[in-house]
Amino acid sequence: MEDCGDVGGEDGNARLLCRESVKALVDSVEAFLFDCDGVIWKGDKLIEGVAQTLEMLRSMGKKLVFVTNNATKSRKQFSNKFHSLGLAVSEDEIFSSSYAAAMFLKTNNFPREKKVYVIGEEGLLEELELAGFTPLGGPEDGNKRVELKSNSLFEHDKSVGAVVVGLDHYINYYKLQYGTLCIRENPGCLFIATNCDAVGHMTDLQEWPGAGCMVGAIRGSTEKEPVVVGKPSTFMMDFLLKKFQIHTSKMLMVGDRLDTDILFGQNAGCKTLLVLTGVTSLSVLKDPTNNIQPDYYTGKLSDFLELLGP
Amino acid sequence: MEDCGDVGGEDGNARLLCRESVKALVDSVEAFLFDCDGVIWKGDKLIEGVAQTLEMLRSMGKKLVFVTNNATKSRKQFSNKFHSLGLAVSEDEIFSSSYAAAMFLKTNNFPREKKVYVIGEEGLLEELELAGFTPLGGPEDGNKRVELKSNSLFEHDKSVGAVVVGLDHYINYYKLQYGTLCIRENPGCLFIATNCDAVGHMTDLQEWPGAGCMVGAIRGSTEKEPVVVGKPSTFMMDFLLKKFQIHTSKMLMVGDRLDTDILFGQNAGCKTLLVLTGVTSLSVLKDPTNNIQPDYYTGKLSDFLELLGP
Repeated sequence: MEDCGDVGGEDGNARLLCRESVKALVDSVEAFLFDCDGVIWKGDKLIEGVAQTLEMLRSMGKKLVFVTNNATKSRKQFSNKFHSLGLAVSEDEIFSSSYAAAMFLKTNNFPREKKVYVIGEEGLLEELELAGFTPLGGPEDGNKRVELKSNSLFEHDKSVGAVVVGLDHYINYYKLQYGTLCIRENPGCLFIATNCDAVGHMTDLQEWPGAGCMVGAIRGSTEKEPVVVGKPSTFMMDFLLKKFQIHTSKMLMVGDRLDTDILFGQNAGCKTLLVLTGVTSLSVLKDPTNNIQPDYYTGKLSDFLELLGP
Repeated sequence: MEDCGDVGGEDGNARLLCRESVKALVDSVEAFLFDCDGVIWKGDKLIEGVAQTLEMLRSMGKKLVFVTNNATKSRKQFSNKFHSLGLAVSEDEIFSSSYAAAMFLKTNNFPREKKVYVIGEEGLLEELELAGFTPLGGPEDGNKRVELKSNSLFEHDKSVGAVVVGLDHYINYYKLQYGTLCIRENPGCLFIATNCDAVGHMTDLQEWPGAGCMVGAIRGSTEKEPVVVGKPSTFMMDFLLKKFQIHTSKMLMVGDRLDTDILFGQNAGCKTLLVLTGVTSLSVLKDPTNNIQPDYYTGKLSDFLELLGP
C-alpha cells in the first residue's frame, strides 16, 4: 500500500494513500467524517484497527464525525452501539439519516399538528419524537395484515402530512398501502427518503436490501420522487457546518460507497477517501464505467496507523 | 355521450365515442381486447351492463380477448372469476401477465434445470408450473422472517436463473432479500416484471399498490431494470396474433389506463378506446401534460349498448 507510483491523481483518478501523501493530507484536515457500515464496522463486528486509528486521530486534535445513512437507529442508539464495540463516541458526534429526516421537517417548518407516517424502524420514530413531531406506523404496523374484501375500506389518517421512508426489515403490504394512500390522497403530503442505498451489510457475512428497496417500492406505487435527506444529499452538511465551524475544504469524508459517501463528500466540497472494507472493490473503483473518483483510496481505515507510524 | 362536436379527433386528441362513430368503429374491428380491472369489474364487482355488452358483441361475431396485467391469478383462476360473475369466458380467451411471464421464459429457451424465484402469488406459480418450470418462493415464503445475526448466512439457491416479480400482497423482507441475492449473485439471473402498474382496484372502494411497488423495491435493491412482459410491452401480442390470425389494425384495445392499456394498444398498432370506469378520469385524459391519447373514449363499456341501440 506504500507505492505512490502510477496510481492516478494527475488524471483525475483516485490516488492510493501512501507515506508520501498521508502526512500532508492529515495536516490539511481538521475534521474526519466517517461513514460507519463498511468503514468502522461490518454488521456487528468492529473492523480491525479502527479503535486505535480513531484514538490516534483524536490525540492529534482532529474532530471526528460519524455520518451514517442507516436510519434504523437514533443517534442515542448509535452511541450505544459504538460503546458496545469499545469506542467512545458521543451522540453529538453522530449524524444519522434518522436525525436528518427530523431536521428536514424542522427546518421546513412542518406543522406540529400534522402527523408523520413512518416506513422504518424504532430509531427513526425516536428522532422524530425528539424533534417534537408525531410519528405513526413503524414497528407497530409490522404485524398488520390487510383485508382485501368487497366493501371494506382501508382507512388512513388524513392529517398525515409527510411519509418518511427508510430501511424497514418488517416491510409489509399494510405499510406500503398506508404510505401510498397518504402520498397519493393527502394534499401536499411530503415523500421523504432517509437514503436510497441499494444494499448494506446488515450482517457481517453478506449484504441485504437497503432503504433504496423500500423507497423504490413507494416510488413505484406513487410515481413520485422523494426528497432524499441522507448521503449523497448534502442536507446534513448545513448542520455539520453550524456545529463545527470548519470549512468543508478542511474536512475529509471517509467512506466505502462511491455513490453515497464519496459523492456526498464531493458535493459538499470535502476531500474524499475510499476504503475497501465495504461495498466497493478495487475493480469497481478502477472500472472504466465508474465515474466517481475519490481523491484517495486505501485498503482499510487502519492504514493510517501504518502510514503515519515510525 | 352522444355529442360528437368539439371533442377532438382532428388534432390527435381522443374523440368521444358517439352514434356517428361507433358503427364504423365496430364494423372495422374483428377482435375486441379488454383489460379487466376497471373495464369489466372493480375488485369483485362486475361493472353495470358489461354482461349484456359482451353478449351483444359476441352475437355480432366479434372475437373477445381479455388481456390483464394482474398476475396473481392463472388463466384458469381468471376463467373461474369470470364465471362467478356470470360471464362465460374460457381460458383460451384470457391473456394474463402470469401467463406472459411463463411464455417469456419458454420463448427464450430458459433451461429446465434452472429454477425461478417468484415474488408473487399462486396464479403466477401455477402458470410457471404449467409451462414446465420449477418455481420457488411465492406464498410459501409469505410468513418467513429473516434473522439478522452475526455469523448467520441467508442461503439462496444458486440454480435460480430468473426472478419473476409481480403483485404480492404478502411481500416481506425475506422475499426481497431472496430475490435480490439471486439477481445480484447468480450469474446471468434474469429479472422479469409481470408489469409495473403503480396501483390497482384490489377492492371496489379504493386503489392499492400494484406490481410496480414490488418491482420498484427490487429495482431499488439491485439497481437493475427488469424485462416487463405485461402491458404496455407488446410481448403478449405475438401470442395473440398466432392464435387469432387477425391483423392488429382490426383489433380494438379497450382499457382504463393510459400508460398500460392504451399504450399497449398503440404500440401494437391496434385502435384504442379508453373507458372512464377505472383509474383514469376525464380530467386526467384532458390534462395538457397527458401525452397518451386513445383514438376514442367513453364513459363505460356498456355505452356500446346505447350507442348501437335503436
